[in-house]
Amino acid sequence: MTLQQTIEKVRGFRVAGVHAGLKADGALDLALLVSDRPCVTAGVFTRNQMLGAPVIVTREHIQSHAQQMRAVVVNTKCANAATGRAGIENSRTMARMVAEHIACQPEQVVVMSTGVIGTHLPMPKIEKGIAQAYQSLGTDWLATADAIRTTDTHPKLASKTVYTSDGQYTIAGMVKGAGMIAPNMATMLTIIVTDAQIAQPDVAQALQEVNESTFNRIVVDGDTSPNDMVILMANGASGVALRTPTDLQQFKAGLYEVARHLAQAVVRDGEGAQKFITLHVMGASNKNDAHAIANTVATSPLVKTAFAGADANWGRIIAAAGRAPVDFNPDQARLWIRAGEAPAEEDEHGLLIFQKGMPAQFSEDEATAIMQADSVYVTLDCGHSDHSAIVWTCDLTHEYVSINADYRT
Amino acid sequence: MTLQQTIEKVRGFRVAGVHAGLKADGALDLALLVSDRPCVTAGVFTRNQMLGAPVIVTREHIQSHAQQMRAVVVNTKCANAATGRAGIENSRTMARMVAEHIACQPEQVVVMSTGVIGTHLPMPKIEKGIAQAYQSLGTDWLATADAIRTTDTHPKLASKTVYTSDGQYTIAGMVKGAGMIAPNMATMLTIIVTDAQIAQPDVAQALQEVNESTFNRIVVDGDTSPNDMVILMANGASGVALRTPTDLQQFKAGLYEVARHLAQAVVRDGEGAQKFITLHVMGASNKNDAHAIANTVATSPLVKTAFAGADANWGRIIAAAGRAPVDFNPDQARLWIRAGEAPAEEDEHGLLIFQKGMPAQFSEDEATAIMQADSVYVTLDCGHSDHSAIVWTCDLTHEYVSINADYRT
Repeated sequence: MTLQQTIEKVRGFRVAGVHAGLKADGALDLALLVSDRPCVTAGVFTRNQMLGAPVIVTREHIQSHAQQMRAVVVNTKCANAATGRAGIENSRTMARMVAEHIACQPEQVVVMSTGVIGTHLPMPKIEKGIAQAYQSLGTDWLATADAIRTTDTHPKLASKTVYTSDGQYTIAGMVKGAGMIAPNMATMLTIIVTDAQIAQPDVAQALQEVNESTFNRIVVDGDTSPNDMVILMANGASGVALRTPTDLQQFKAGLYEVARHLAQAVVRDGEGAQKFITLHVMGASNKNDAHAIANTVATSPLVKTAFAGADANWGRIIAAAGRAPVDFNPDQARLWIRAGEAPAEEDEHGLLIFQKGMPAQFSEDEATAIMQADSVYVTLDCGHSDHSAIVWTCDLTHEYVSINADYRT
Repeated sequence: MTLQQTIEKVRGFRVAGVHAGLKADGALDLALLVSDRPCVTAGVFTRNQMLGAPVIVTREHIQSHAQQMRAVVVNTKCANAATGRAGIENSRTMARMVAEHIACQPEQVVVMSTGVIGTHLPMPKIEKGIAQAYQSLGTDWLATADAIRTTDTHPKLASKTVYTSDGQYTIAGMVKGAGMIAPNMATMLTIIVTDAQIAQPDVAQALQEVNESTFNRIVVDGDTSPNDMVILMANGASGVALRTPTDLQQFKAGLYEVARHLAQAVVRDGEGAQKFITLHVMGASNKNDAHAIANTVATSPLVKTAFAGADANWGRIIAAAGRAPVDFNPDQARLWIRAGEAPAEEDEHGLLIFQKGMPAQFSEDEATAIMQADSVYVTLDCGHSDHSAIVWTCDLTHEYVSINADYRT
């Protein structure tokens, strides 16, 4: 069964990706997703204090109509951020245009924009694009995911069908994001839908939890954008109602699988990325500490360039952990590396390269061979207690500098 | 009057830089500084939780002998970090070797090391080098500053003679640092000496204050090292005693001038740096907020690559400020750029490129011309209150990635 076929199983949702004339090269640039019935919906939004108009408007819509959302519209090439009141009006108008086609309230529409900041949406093109997308609604998920791309090198989709004693339901999602580029201020936008029937508080809680361990665990360059959003919509079209704790646990597991796949796809497609890196911090005093240490290591330019150079540079990793804003004692720490990206089994951490304040006895050749793999799994045991966190990141390459410094040339 | 002549005026200090056989190419690699009488001394040390042996040992020495320090010894090529108990013993031995030559206690000696981490000091070479340096003690400050370099492209010195009604005294300093590279884990090491006569608490307070607004205000890549130290020693040889608040104010002003010069020299010589950037955050709610915002902007890879590409990318700067861990409201902010590095006079901030949530009306050509200068001064007014902070940084270039990723190739 292909991905396309699995995704088509998510019932009651129709999608379209069209060319609205926003991208100069004729590529798809406007996406529409419509549910044939109201969806319970939850969202998580950028914590950046610079907020794009679509974030402001969508947050309001979901707050007032969390039980009744009907559609998502996404345009590329213009982020509609740093556009003042006129920008907010344009986001509202975009929602109204969709609402008129599908006969609902504007507040039942999620609006997303990505692209250049500080410029206004070309509303006539948007209007025409929405009409065209409405006419094209169907099951072409690939085209839809294609239409939300900016610098992403490929569309990113994932889906999962869950089988229960009451029948089956599907969770399907798409994401765009590859770092944060301005003026093409690329943004992480995620849309996940399911035909399961589930209460709004359960949707909100599942999204919060799963987001914490997936989209909040990826680092390309540590920068965030004014437009980041993750939206989860459930329309109940499968008829499978999730009520018991076991039902919800199963749903969360499926959602986690879809979200992790999408989040990792962003890192894999990170600007200039050559390597997929898993940072597994264990033995921390608590979960927050583990995450803070993993995040500091993942954002360290020296660590990221060492990975680009396939250099098993334990010194940079330990020194980055040492400047994390939480307790970390190198004299109690141990550090391993191994090739691949599968979660580490107990005692299968790979090659020990640092322990208790000093480099371990290891073969530089063996270490270099591991570092030359496409994926490297790093395990850092803090030796404090038993809390852990995983962060996924990529290396910092010449290509990253080229994309971001030479963008205009 | 040349720098060398000004520095020679600092009385009672003799210096030497020698080749102890640590650097393969025969370059100077060991430095010694000796005062002919005890110095009151203060130090500030890396806040990284990974501490090199020289930091641990020097901190102990200054704690117990803050009124009686006599000498500083510095070796390159080996940082003596991540070396366990044997490393600490070696740092103590280095101090004892110096102490034996100049007939003082080992605790009266400051020890600094910089270079590869995780390897042990070659003690026979260190011993021979110290003996040789002791024999060469004189006034060759340039050779001494040369001998503490690792990846720095040139030695970095500064001095200032202060004239008072009681006579004159001099403040002289040297620094090494150009980012933090491992395995050549380059470290910021600063030694500042003065022949003023000044009480230890006043030395400590002056260093603390000046360090906050100089060495703590530079960012190359945001990474810190296990070996960073700034040491200030005063031996009183000028006979000029600083007692009154006015005396101390004048001393602090002179110290600030020397420290700022040295701190800026580190940024100018930053790994791969092509551009010297001043980030002046004003209008913040308090000084800490101003510094947090300036620091977040200065460490943003997207901001730093934009400067490398001479791109007046207000979006990246505002978005970086927006993810600083303190209050920042883009709708109240204004942003200017201008060429040069002189402090901004009131209302001479240059070209306004962003104001109150939206891009300003400005000429892209004019902005690009400013961004192409060797030095760019950025002023960000938060519009909250009247507190400010200045941070100096550099751009993130292909050369940075080459130095740090391709180091071993």
